[in-house]
Amino acid sequence: MAELALSPTAPSAKPVPVLARLEALCSGQKLDTLGERLAELARFVDADMAKLERGLDPSFGLSEPRAIHRGAGHLVALGGKRLRPMCVVLASRLGNAAEASAHELAIAVELVHSATLLHDDVVDLGDVRRGAPATRAIWGNAISIFAGDWLLIEALRRVRRAEVPGVLERLLDAIDEMICAESLQLERRGDLSLGLDTWWRVAEGKTAALFRWAMLAGGRAGGLDERATAALERYGVHLGVAFQAIDDVLDLAGEAEDTGKALFADLREGKVTYPAMIARERDPKVGELLAEAARSDAHAVGLFSEIRARMEATGAIDAGKELAAERGLAASRALDELPAGPARDALATVVHAVVARKA
Amino acid sequence: MAELALSPTAPSAKPVPVLARLEALCSGQKLDTLGERLAELARFVDADMAKLERGLDPSFGLSEPRAIHRGAGHLVALGGKRLRPMCVVLASRLGNAAEASAHELAIAVELVHSATLLHDDVVDLGDVRRGAPATRAIWGNAISIFAGDWLLIEALRRVRRAEVPGVLERLLDAIDEMICAESLQLERRGDLSLGLDTWWRVAEGKTAALFRWAMLAGGRAGGLDERATAALERYGVHLGVAFQAIDDVLDLAGEAEDTGKALFADLREGKVTYPAMIARERDPKVGELLAEAARSDAHAVGLFSEIRARMEATGAIDAGKELAAERGLAASRALDELPAGPARDALATVVHAVVARKA
Repeated sequence: MAELALSPTAPSAKPVPVLARLEALCSGQKLDTLGERLAELARFVDADMAKLERGLDPSFGLSEPRAIHRGAGHLVALGGKRLRPMCVVLASRLGNAAEASAHELAIAVELVHSATLLHDDVVDLGDVRRGAPATRAIWGNAISIFAGDWLLIEALRRVRRAEVPGVLERLLDAIDEMICAESLQLERRGDLSLGLDTWWRVAEGKTAALFRWAMLAGGRAGGLDERATAALERYGVHLGVAFQAIDDVLDLAGEAEDTGKALFADLREGKVTYPAMIARERDPKVGELLAEAARSDAHAVGLFSEIRARMEATGAIDAGKELAAERGLAASRALDELPAGPARDALATVVHAVVARKA
Repeated sequence: MAELALSPTAPSAKPVPVLARLEALCSGQKLDTLGERLAELARFVDADMAKLERGLDPSFGLSEPRAIHRGAGHLVALGGKRLRPMCVVLASRLGNAAEASAHELAIAVELVHSATLLHDDVVDLGDVRRGAPATRAIWGNAISIFAGDWLLIEALRRVRRAEVPGVLERLLDAIDEMICAESLQLERRGDLSLGLDTWWRVAEGKTAALFRWAMLAGGRAGGLDERATAALERYGVHLGVAFQAIDDVLDLAGEAEDTGKALFADLREGKVTYPAMIARERDPKVGELLAEAARSDAHAVGLFSEIRARMEATGAIDAGKELAAERGLAASRALDELPAGPARDALATVVHAVVARKA
């Protein structure tokens, strides 16, 4: 909970330990080279991230915060990985950004992400988020809904204030994509006959669209040209899909103490996950067990363990990791078109951290 | 359901019967003068409102609507009073507006209003809206939440597209006010010791802020000067408070078949209503009965009938009507600063319809 120490009541402006955060992300892996790269990334962005953290003040600078602000601030203060704002900052540092604008955009992307979590938790009846009680578990569904609405509006106000051409319009488009993907996922909930194309549409809309916007926003804030921002957007899409592939793997094969979420949550909710789709193709019995799990008690731990074992046997979990690695490679290749330097190196490191992450 | 006939599948561009709608609003009242004025208003805005109705296409012009679009379109197609878009249109016609811009803004204000209804219905577990099953009752809470999110984003996109200076920023501020007022109302739910100041803050934030924006947006689209738009905003605030006062009266004294909502819904949900606050001041027994109602079965019809009878005896329901009339007068006075003509006359008629409304 290093982030909590950085709430506005903390006396000093101690830098946020980006290194510690990213190392925890990849904990327990033998990744000496990645370790060195992460240390370099940390040196490059720590000061920026510390400033951002102060901007993510859980009372939002309000003298009279309402319940919605407290509910939103609770989630935001729990930290999370801050990957999306880091993307904005790194993209902006490829060019010459006015720091204030880049930081407004970076905070905005984190607020949009947080807004979706507040609404998702109501939809999924989630009680735990980031290893702590979800806002809805403390303040109730109504506050979680309105707090999400408020974060969305506050994010848009910040983007407007940043006055970077074209990014507000594109953020509205990205949020539209996110909501449509949520709808698609809901419509297909529990449908076990889906093709991989649906998985891709959900992953691109729900996850990659916001990473893409983060890269675009940073690039535009940095004054990069069309070709460079297009490359950044490609990076964002690939990174987002890699991120989602690992999310799906962690739902099956992660450790609840690392992820801060319950295992098998997606499967229990009837969501399409990449390894589940692959495993079903390779072993029809997995499909039957998934159908049984959907009909049965959500706490049928034995059944989920059997599903997990069978999925592992089909190599579906490895297939999820491979997809992430492959998309990671595509993201790295997109960086080739960008000016070499510490910002580009840092973006390459982010790819490795996302692919190797365990939380 | 005249509005439904105007969906995009209707063959002709028959004007929307504004007169019928507003007459129904004031049904059963001996208001011959108002009747004539409404007929004049209808002649003035029918063509505009018919175009707007086509713009409020329940599939939003999408070839492949998702569940969120269908859920949102269901509510939007049920019609409602369309007062907010009418305000935009009438304000814009005080000046020289590009019709396309004014219409985008008018549709946007209706979409924002609809978004709040979709979220409110989840918060209040409302099953009936506009005399039909609520979106959440058909598609579930998740779709109602995401459909509300989507309408909000779609509204903002339309406002951006309208390219009228300053109105997007002000809409974000207005939505912020609305959400903060929702939060205040939730925080004080069931608190029977509230002062009237809380009622005013909720009414101004939840209801008047959006009417105010509608007037501002129309005025700006029409190219009116600062002084004129300031007068329009004052009109919007007063009209909004009058509207809320009548809403509160109708919750107690309306007819469910007129309002399309269950009676006593606000009281059951522990919401502050103006007549309840006045009645409590004048007759302490009302306070006791309200506390009892809050503790007891929500379907204690006898208890609510007793509360209603006692409220009527204290004159609290009349006090609510008087507040509406007084705010209506203030709204009309704000019109004095605006150029005389049919648009101003129409806005005066809207005040009368809102104060006299029974639905």
